[in-house]
Amino acid sequence: MYGAGDVRVENAPDPAIQQPTDAIVRIVRSCICGSDLHPYHSLPASERGTPMGHEFLGVIEDLGSQVSGLRRGDVVVAPFAYSDNTCAFCREGLHTSCLSGGFWASGGVGGGQAEAIRVPQAQGTLVKLPVGEDSELLSSLLTLADVYGTGYHAAKQAHVNPGTTVAVIGDGAVGLMAVLSAKRLGAEQIILMGRHDARTKLGIDFGATDVVPERGAEGVEKVRELTGGQGVHAVLEAVGYMNAYETAVGVVRPGGVISRVGVPQYEDAAIGFASLFGPNITLTGGPAPVRAYIDQLLPDVLEGRVEPGRVFDQAIVLEQVPDGYRAMDERTALKVLIQP
Amino acid sequence: MYGAGDVRVENAPDPAIQQPTDAIVRIVRSCICGSDLHPYHSLPASERGTPMGHEFLGVIEDLGSQVSGLRRGDVVVAPFAYSDNTCAFCREGLHTSCLSGGFWASGGVGGGQAEAIRVPQAQGTLVKLPVGEDSELLSSLLTLADVYGTGYHAAKQAHVNPGTTVAVIGDGAVGLMAVLSAKRLGAEQIILMGRHDARTKLGIDFGATDVVPERGAEGVEKVRELTGGQGVHAVLEAVGYMNAYETAVGVVRPGGVISRVGVPQYEDAAIGFASLFGPNITLTGGPAPVRAYIDQLLPDVLEGRVEPGRVFDQAIVLEQVPDGYRAMDERTALKVLIQP
Repeated sequence: MYGAGDVRVENAPDPAIQQPTDAIVRIVRSCICGSDLHPYHSLPASERGTPMGHEFLGVIEDLGSQVSGLRRGDVVVAPFAYSDNTCAFCREGLHTSCLSGGFWASGGVGGGQAEAIRVPQAQGTLVKLPVGEDSELLSSLLTLADVYGTGYHAAKQAHVNPGTTVAVIGDGAVGLMAVLSAKRLGAEQIILMGRHDARTKLGIDFGATDVVPERGAEGVEKVRELTGGQGVHAVLEAVGYMNAYETAVGVVRPGGVISRVGVPQYEDAAIGFASLFGPNITLTGGPAPVRAYIDQLLPDVLEGRVEPGRVFDQAIVLEQVPDGYRAMDERTALKVLIQP
Repeated sequence: MYGAGDVRVENAPDPAIQQPTDAIVRIVRSCICGSDLHPYHSLPASERGTPMGHEFLGVIEDLGSQVSGLRRGDVVVAPFAYSDNTCAFCREGLHTSCLSGGFWASGGVGGGQAEAIRVPQAQGTLVKLPVGEDSELLSSLLTLADVYGTGYHAAKQAHVNPGTTVAVIGDGAVGLMAVLSAKRLGAEQIILMGRHDARTKLGIDFGATDVVPERGAEGVEKVRELTGGQGVHAVLEAVGYMNAYETAVGVVRPGGVISRVGVPQYEDAAIGFASLFGPNITLTGGPAPVRAYIDQLLPDVLEGRVEPGRVFDQAIVLEQVPDGYRAMDERTALKVLIQP
């Protein structure tokens, strides 16, 4: 990406092992993330493009000498942050704060919207998948790289359980995965706030019990009506804009939790007596430590009990990536799968 | 209180039963709260004074016809909010959001800095104490009305446990009770941020392992030094000013919790990627549902295993209440006990 709206597909040097803890992965599936749209809207123009993409699965092509437990030819999925899986933060399940970790497409590491990628901390980062590279499950398995784990993080951080009433703000892929996750954790009332028919229908398939297309004060009122006037125990906020935060404050119940996984596009917001403090609201969330959740979420995907891959409604090849960004930006696609 | 700095002791009509759920309590001990200093600094002058005080224990003098489980002559303590102890919020332990509840010194209910008070929702609100009105434990028992329960709320909301490193911001009575509560919950490192010698010494008696008198960036650096550079799992913020919030963000560890019980004197603050979201910080807290904690905290007080009443370092009679406010405002007193 060379600036807002300027995505180009270019030849780049093949990645190679640099550290003994690296691996090289040939990418079999990757995709475009809702969060990629933020730079697509606002990245300053530059002569030096930046690599893009942080969700991929593929086949191990090469391994550094210190990587054990993995072999060439293994089909693996990578979380959207790499991590050693051994440091104090990883041991607490916060792989996104790994002391040896980092994020794709920065600091000399490539992006996932590519044919191949160098994976630092390969042993801690990559999770072997017991499928072939022609498996029909690849789309669903790819969601473990980000959106399913991110939706699950929202629900886990909000302590969703069978007694919890839930509102999910946003019907993008992460919002829909938050619905699926709340359902998995037993929530009996899951209100999806979104206005795109095809997406909210998928949300109902994933477990939403109510859909509220209204926004702002009207949307808040609708959610309150659906919860006996009291609001919901857990708000899973999967958008990141200030109006989504304001809606979250409006629909949450006293004593409830606002769990954010949409990357905030604001820094300051209301958290004083009138908003969070007076009614004892908890605010939580952040970049999901997806690595911590893959092992938990994998069996249901492998056994077909859930189909998170249904969020992909368009598939393209690498050369079409600029069209993929456009489709997601124009909301003609929910989430675009890339098959290099 | 007739305005900032203007506290008067006046004769008022004796309270009487108004609802069948009321009780009348003759007050045996009450006190002045750090939060009473906020109106003491900023209340607009008015011809009609407002009653003050929300912490008291006393003897039941009269009971409405629908109150059961209590008798005239019982020694009782009241939490700083009254509540029915039966509604949906009370059942979830959030008595400060009780659907039939409210706060002292507002809405036609008197304050605790008085000789007697009408207690709405008496059956849900008052907790019988198995002591006489001459007990030496009265000071410690009075802390169950607010400061001990409030400090405990901070620690509980932060999920303090034996593996948690804790920083307490503020060496007022609530801060010291937060230290005692963190200790009770098993924390092994408790860093008290405060600069008043007599108070931090008491904090050490209550369980603080380190004292950091520095403020701002210097204080943040000291706490980071004491925690191997990583910050603390739990920050118990018992001040309420913006600089305390900023310190909290500075000393908390990625994945950690900021638990606020100091009433925020601000509405907007930083909660975006750079402050809370990026490092997955949880922000929690609010007015403590003290009623929910009295039963848990009472046995240790009755058996003398803890002495929270040591926060009272000055005792006055009702006529001296204006002096008591002055002493707390000038910090010549930590917390002032009132013996009507």
